[in-house]
Amino acid sequence: MTQAPFGTLDAFRNLLRDLPEPDTQAQEAAEARNAQLTKPPGALGRLETLAAWVGGWQGTEKPEIAAPQVAVFAGNHGVCAQGVSAFPPEVTVQMVANFEAGGAAINQLCKAMGARLSVHALELKRPTEDFTRAPAMSEADFLGALQVGWMAVDHDADLFVAGEMGIGNTTSAAALAYALYGETAGTWTGRGTGVDAEGLARKTDVVARGVALHAPQAQDALDLLRRLGGRELAAMAGAIAAARTARIPVVLDGFICTAAAACLEVVRPGALDHCVAGHVSAEAGHVALLAKLGKPPLLSLDLRLGEGSGAATAIGILKAAVACQSGMATFAEAGVADG
Amino acid sequence: MTQAPFGTLDAFRNLLRDLPEPDTQAQEAAEARNAQLTKPPGALGRLETLAAWVGGWQGTEKPEIAAPQVAVFAGNHGVCAQGVSAFPPEVTVQMVANFEAGGAAINQLCKAMGARLSVHALELKRPTEDFTRAPAMSEADFLGALQVGWMAVDHDADLFVAGEMGIGNTTSAAALAYALYGETAGTWTGRGTGVDAEGLARKTDVVARGVALHAPQAQDALDLLRRLGGRELAAMAGAIAAARTARIPVVLDGFICTAAAACLEVVRPGALDHCVAGHVSAEAGHVALLAKLGKPPLLSLDLRLGEGSGAATAIGILKAAVACQSGMATFAEAGVADG
Repeated sequence: MTQAPFGTLDAFRNLLRDLPEPDTQAQEAAEARNAQLTKPPGALGRLETLAAWVGGWQGTEKPEIAAPQVAVFAGNHGVCAQGVSAFPPEVTVQMVANFEAGGAAINQLCKAMGARLSVHALELKRPTEDFTRAPAMSEADFLGALQVGWMAVDHDADLFVAGEMGIGNTTSAAALAYALYGETAGTWTGRGTGVDAEGLARKTDVVARGVALHAPQAQDALDLLRRLGGRELAAMAGAIAAARTARIPVVLDGFICTAAAACLEVVRPGALDHCVAGHVSAEAGHVALLAKLGKPPLLSLDLRLGEGSGAATAIGILKAAVACQSGMATFAEAGVADG
Repeated sequence: MTQAPFGTLDAFRNLLRDLPEPDTQAQEAAEARNAQLTKPPGALGRLETLAAWVGGWQGTEKPEIAAPQVAVFAGNHGVCAQGVSAFPPEVTVQMVANFEAGGAAINQLCKAMGARLSVHALELKRPTEDFTRAPAMSEADFLGALQVGWMAVDHDADLFVAGEMGIGNTTSAAALAYALYGETAGTWTGRGTGVDAEGLARKTDVVARGVALHAPQAQDALDLLRRLGGRELAAMAGAIAAARTARIPVVLDGFICTAAAACLEVVRPGALDHCVAGHVSAEAGHVALLAKLGKPPLLSLDLRLGEGSGAATAIGILKAAVACQSGMATFAEAGVADG
């Protein structure tokens, strides 16, 4: 496949209507196998349900995670003109160079977890529009970013993580969460890379103004992603949808990744059934967003870096889960009395 | 070294008085390096403090975890005669065979985390005494188990996990926690491998009777470990102390491991400064015990298996932490603006 299987936004919407479901027979076989393994029933706790869930998506009672992929998407944000970040927008391109040179956190985490890393810079010299004034992306721009994300997924991967880099993108994520789920702008707006109290107040106001401008006009949650998001958020949504069509389980990263993913879930309930929350970040709003999605996090370590770092750290837990599920002896094999 | 550096319990007590402290210069150098890495300050959350802590024990600003060791200790418990477990005591020896054949959860977890596994069966044919009637171990028995644990630690390891197997040993752990920290017997007594409500009531009564018998006579927390513990709990305490003298950081496993370790901390405050809590288990009392020790867990996944399984799963988090600390580029190296 050399191009994405959708050439219009409506074609992408149609794809979302027709997503594959997990192999429930394989999932049940995994659960049945689990019940025979040499341990008290349920003693591996959440590792057991995770393993059966991976088994359902991989279509086997003995799932494996031997080839995880992390794809990091980078974009620049016109809304930075409003003074919403502690870092200048130049840092986005500098960090992409750092990813490519192997010096960032996500490079080390991918090495530690045996994951392949791909980096996708999305037109960094052409920031999105400032969403307090206009939609962040045109329809063509948005479609292009969805396609980049879709094409980034390696169909040989057995687990997928979408990460991001984009100075200003917690502002987009907060605006999306507010537009999707209501409450107040303050519920979803946090300090990002570290704005001070004054910066936080400014950022909250930017979120409120952006949602006030776009929510009444938006066609659906995907259109909200176009209006309030960024190219890297759109690409993450495209990638997460592509992973679903390839039945590859996904580990969601932090607030920005989860906000992009939530647009899929709101457009098409169940669209994130192949996703587990890798961690809950220190960014205000992520706890609430995971609660809206009904996804309890695997880790809670106060990370707030992005890049896919929290999800990559959680790969170790999923590897542990499938290692037990697929490698342990049964009571009969081991000659152990089963209580 | 072919034998432990203590030949009496008092010599072991003397060793505990004189434990080495971390290299604070190395820890501060690690923190200073961390502040220069290409990420917003604090953005890696708890991974940052973990990495500096490992650096302090390893004596370097660039710690590594390339050779973790998991040692599993197994013992049998006379208190099983009181009907405190859902499994028969024969399962202890069967599970040791399973560890040796590579079929248990801990085997798969060690493979997934790149850890070396050693298995130490402690006189399984000679269970400890029923602690509702007599001390679980004689002084000679207890000393021998401490020595086995001490000698099990590989001085080339850069991280250590002590795991256990012993039908009936959550009863010992609950009795120890109750004797060390008070509250009620019910605070610390849980369902272990899965006793029913009636079994739980019986187990709670056994814990209360054991502590009523031994607490008034015990010389100190180590003597409580002799009276209420088991050989595998004593061995874990010996191993954790040995790791400290070799400045090897330790990941604590679940309730039983933590109860054994707590005896060291009560005898010698600070004795567990080289330990981090790998997880909080589903066993009642573990949350409270970690709170008493002031050790927040890395994982909370409802595991309740033992074998070192929760701590082994947490090795991935520590690997992630030191990988970032030691492998990331600084702002200067990467040419990234630092906010």
